[in-house]
Amino acid sequence: MPDDPGEQDPGEQFVIDTILAARPPSASGPVRLDAGDDTAIVDGHTLVTTDTLVEGVHWDQRARPFDVGWKCIAVSVSDIAAMGGAPTWATLSLCLPRPLDANWVRAFARGLGDACAQWTVRLVGGDTTRSPGARVVSITMGGRAEHPLLRSGAAVGHDIWVTGVPGEAAVGFMHNGPGLTALHHPQPPVAFARALSRQQLAGAAMDLSDGLATDLPRLCKASGVGALVDPSALPTSPILRTAKRPLAAQVAFGDDYQLLFTAAPEHRTSIVALANAHQVRATRIGHTTAARTVRLLNTSWPAPEFSHFVSAHGHAP
Amino acid sequence: MPDDPGEQDPGEQFVIDTILAARPPSASGPVRLDAGDDTAIVDGHTLVTTDTLVEGVHWDQRARPFDVGWKCIAVSVSDIAAMGGAPTWATLSLCLPRPLDANWVRAFARGLGDACAQWTVRLVGGDTTRSPGARVVSITMGGRAEHPLLRSGAAVGHDIWVTGVPGEAAVGFMHNGPGLTALHHPQPPVAFARALSRQQLAGAAMDLSDGLATDLPRLCKASGVGALVDPSALPTSPILRTAKRPLAAQVAFGDDYQLLFTAAPEHRTSIVALANAHQVRATRIGHTTAARTVRLLNTSWPAPEFSHFVSAHGHAP
Repeated sequence: MPDDPGEQDPGEQFVIDTILAARPPSASGPVRLDAGDDTAIVDGHTLVTTDTLVEGVHWDQRARPFDVGWKCIAVSVSDIAAMGGAPTWATLSLCLPRPLDANWVRAFARGLGDACAQWTVRLVGGDTTRSPGARVVSITMGGRAEHPLLRSGAAVGHDIWVTGVPGEAAVGFMHNGPGLTALHHPQPPVAFARALSRQQLAGAAMDLSDGLATDLPRLCKASGVGALVDPSALPTSPILRTAKRPLAAQVAFGDDYQLLFTAAPEHRTSIVALANAHQVRATRIGHTTAARTVRLLNTSWPAPEFSHFVSAHGHAP
Repeated sequence: MPDDPGEQDPGEQFVIDTILAARPPSASGPVRLDAGDDTAIVDGHTLVTTDTLVEGVHWDQRARPFDVGWKCIAVSVSDIAAMGGAPTWATLSLCLPRPLDANWVRAFARGLGDACAQWTVRLVGGDTTRSPGARVVSITMGGRAEHPLLRSGAAVGHDIWVTGVPGEAAVGFMHNGPGLTALHHPQPPVAFARALSRQQLAGAAMDLSDGLATDLPRLCKASGVGALVDPSALPTSPILRTAKRPLAAQVAFGDDYQLLFTAAPEHRTSIVALANAHQVRATRIGHTTAARTVRLLNTSWPAPEFSHFVSAHGHAP
């Protein structure tokens, strides 16, 4: 999740670093992979991820309570999918102000239930608490993957691929219209990602939650490679063509929950066939390099200049 | 966790019921036990629990940030222990207002790290977000138990036991003083609970997070039994003897994170020996009954009359 769409919060890294530094030395044990990928891996093949959505930070009043229920599940499903896994269970932490808005709760529950049905997730528990302020929704999700797709699996000379049309969520946030569906009702490509993992076609993978300009450097850093992306190769759509600054929408916003992955060139045909079989749009946008820079061909990364949620109920349509 | 110490929130049950009712029909699969016990059980022997602490609801300014870090781990460890399990991993969701208070973060991280060291918990991931209001800390914890202790395991004629001195946290909340240590630095009896589970000495078990008057009826309902508790048998201590209304503190507040369990009378000697071996105080306070009422001997359950946290920073010492 972008903590604040269009703004990388420098404080977030401080919080993460401070908390990780205070951890006791690991006895390792049941933990195979921890902080630093889309999910942790515990007990052999169990994936675990936590995502939190805060009213006024991650959604505004354009999001219906049904959407919030759907999206809180979808963003964690996206993390599980990015590891090539299948989601299995989830727990919910829900902080709501008093007096309770019963209609909000019912619609939220429907969205959550629909998303759980779509991806066969069992909500197994949670905690409901009173909030003195904003609504806060946090999901922890478990899943399983036999051959987890890590961020660190890219090699020099891999193709770089994305699924879907990254940027549509940004267009929805900025301009309303049909892009709002991408923003509020994300559909991470779970079955396709699982097939990529099972067939061991991908090198590295992660989900596009913070935008290519932020996420691709993370993948490259984990893999020890660089990247060159051709902006003219980025997928586009009627929704994207309504954007005032399409490239910024495509790379500098996030909230798309599509898949970013790398693969050796010899798998191109197999990947295209797999994408077709899963009715997923998969687009080759560049390749990894030995030089450890992450660049756009013939241009620089656009600065994120989007307005963002500025108050508990503000939004910037 | 009590959502609001001293006050059972009628809205909480509505939220839980609404969300559980909107779940898709279960395909069961990897889930062995879900909502309704101290933890869920997934993938065979994995315990999963989620607990959320909200500033101004679950702690006030008397709690140091170190305490908040310790307690958020301890309350989930308590749930795992109540299942007879050993905690293994945790994820953290942390919502903090801006500008960040770096000292708060550092002290919180130390408390969290100390608690993780104490119970060998590995923090494997999480999410940090901006909060437009109060600090919100949510922990999801995983653990393992070979012979899980369920709430439903009590039979008629079982002894009812508690560990520690339930009520000391209430005394701390009401009167400050040494009871604050019980409130802010809970020490759930993990090793003792695991031994009870391994040796299969206990019938039912749960942790005392909401107080005996609330938690014992839950255990009895799950087991299909009633209970008779002798208030004069409840453990006491110098701290408890400072309470204005000791019985109310002992049964009607919660936040103690001690263990409530039942066991067949033939295990009395073994349980006392086990408690001694683990330096845990275990006290027999009553027995389960065929009549499905949950009563105190010769008196009625005291009404919770504690003041409670009323605003984001208010407290009632």
